[in-house]
Amino acid sequence: MAHTNASKIYNLVGAEAVLTEAEDLRKYLTGFSSSFGYVLSDKDGSVFYTDPRYLEAAERALDGTEIAVKKFVSPLEDLLKTYKQVAVPLEKIGYLEHKKLLDCGLSVVDSSDAFTQAMAVKEDYEINSIKKACNITDKAFVRLLGEIKEGMTENDVAALLEYLMRQGGASGASFDTIVGFGENSSVPHHETGLRKLRFGDIILIDFGCKTDGYCSDCTRTVLFGDDNKHSDFKKAYAHVLEAHNLVKEKVVSGMTGSEADAIARNCLKKYGLDNLFTHSLGHGIGLNIHEFPRLSPKSEDKLINGMVFSDEPGVYLAGEYGIRIEDTVMLCNNEVISLTDSDKKLIIL
Amino acid sequence: MAHTNASKIYNLVGAEAVLTEAEDLRKYLTGFSSSFGYVLSDKDGSVFYTDPRYLEAAERALDGTEIAVKKFVSPLEDLLKTYKQVAVPLEKIGYLEHKKLLDCGLSVVDSSDAFTQAMAVKEDYEINSIKKACNITDKAFVRLLGEIKEGMTENDVAALLEYLMRQGGASGASFDTIVGFGENSSVPHHETGLRKLRFGDIILIDFGCKTDGYCSDCTRTVLFGDDNKHSDFKKAYAHVLEAHNLVKEKVVSGMTGSEADAIARNCLKKYGLDNLFTHSLGHGIGLNIHEFPRLSPKSEDKLINGMVFSDEPGVYLAGEYGIRIEDTVMLCNNEVISLTDSDKKLIIL
Repeated sequence: MAHTNASKIYNLVGAEAVLTEAEDLRKYLTGFSSSFGYVLSDKDGSVFYTDPRYLEAAERALDGTEIAVKKFVSPLEDLLKTYKQVAVPLEKIGYLEHKKLLDCGLSVVDSSDAFTQAMAVKEDYEINSIKKACNITDKAFVRLLGEIKEGMTENDVAALLEYLMRQGGASGASFDTIVGFGENSSVPHHETGLRKLRFGDIILIDFGCKTDGYCSDCTRTVLFGDDNKHSDFKKAYAHVLEAHNLVKEKVVSGMTGSEADAIARNCLKKYGLDNLFTHSLGHGIGLNIHEFPRLSPKSEDKLINGMVFSDEPGVYLAGEYGIRIEDTVMLCNNEVISLTDSDKKLIIL
Repeated sequence: MAHTNASKIYNLVGAEAVLTEAEDLRKYLTGFSSSFGYVLSDKDGSVFYTDPRYLEAAERALDGTEIAVKKFVSPLEDLLKTYKQVAVPLEKIGYLEHKKLLDCGLSVVDSSDAFTQAMAVKEDYEINSIKKACNITDKAFVRLLGEIKEGMTENDVAALLEYLMRQGGASGASFDTIVGFGENSSVPHHETGLRKLRFGDIILIDFGCKTDGYCSDCTRTVLFGDDNKHSDFKKAYAHVLEAHNLVKEKVVSGMTGSEADAIARNCLKKYGLDNLFTHSLGHGIGLNIHEFPRLSPKSEDKLINGMVFSDEPGVYLAGEYGIRIEDTVMLCNNEVISLTDSDKKLIIL
């Protein structure tokens, strides 16, 4: 359960007190979603301080766990006055919040690394939440395919897909859905808009949802009818899929992010497509849609068993076409397991 | 247009250089949505630095404006080495970003106030975007009412409403839609869940959407059939609506947020309901769903013409019922104009 994470982090950090305010880290420690609160851990245990909006629900959710729940009474300084040292995540703390701690006479140390390492390796309850999100993602995509019609806008398709994920049980999208028709598929971060779907268009869809706070991430590229003008696209599609699958075959625990990235990049190089692969291979996925580890040409991040990340090689020819094939995957007993897993053979609608 | 905001802020701040990274402030300066970039203004003008994902689209969007577009080349320090002083928004900058500036030997001043003041008073183009979002919000609500059926979950209703807003042209919801049935309506920040709709239930819906990056915010409370057990609720509804309308009548330019809040609170006091009004009257609305000014019992923030904010008195009786009636409104020529404006008489479905 989430509820032992507070003592895990406290022990990893090794400071007199550990103070956590960032929303994602707070959720990691408590398992409870809220827009305001602090978790404070010291040798006597952990307390979640929040405001009346969340108090009752937090008490119910954390009853019987190692985390006590108390009403937050301003100012924060009052909670800290018995300490000489406090740990906060320097990567996530604002300048003013940090200054406040110094003004209290506290010595401030960094808890970022402890969170990054602990959150990167998923526990079973986290894997289950991510699997749930991935299943909803897969099912929504299959339902969407049956609903796509000529004349729909990119926005229409994105709205429908997000609705289907919500209907399937997601609490929402894990990021703004990207839908690119035709030439728009060649912009990796295309802003979904009013372009209408025409016969023969490529459709690139990058999407995901959240359940229990955990994210899924998936991209599929399909053809809306075959106008017989897509032989280069089809060849490139097969190469991107080969690169995508090769990553799943070859990645093992202990590899660095750059070694994983090189598997896809070298595969595309064989076909002269590596210069069109203009982004990284992937990123860690959890409570955040982008987290540790990075799978990129320069990443020293170590991939180990229990990590969940994306495998998303892509090829983009400006103004012509774009292809990206992405699954959320996990590394488990030295094997890559696909958590999103809808069909990746080229679909022609 | 947005594109004169960079020089406006530069002149307001009065520092040698103004560096802006926060996503909302960057959008305010450029009118362009992106997840990465810096705007740097000095006496020679403004430059938007971003990465290849956004470069082409940004160049198109800012062509012919006072803002040049350039590719960002790391490290940030290289952009700043000719300056002795730089302004950043201390309220929005991270500890590490701030430290980097100090390490460059720069003297750092605060741009927060300039942004807060400038962004609070909306220009015509901003009002138009907010009006668009509000219209979509109103229309989606009316369509939703026709679709609500017994047995739907809170999640179903939220998903459908978000879909209708998307279909209406919104780029997405401006926050996670809150739907509370029956007793759940008494939790102001209820987490939308799996409670099923039954005959005689109160339905509280707090929702909004975004267009061109600008937000709308609206709450309606309706009855799903009348089981004749709601006479207290109906009386309280009339009083909350009276408080809501009184705010619209009485607020004028120059008032403080606490004076506006007191209009609603004193009205509810007449009926002994002020102790059940457990939150603030409202908040500014713009690129962010919560921004300056605050309309709360202690707020000294001045309300002036051109500001857009929420008018949302509410009454909550734990475990029994909740009522909130909210419109997005603007202050214009000393009058409060309602931008969301669907029916506020008690609707019984």
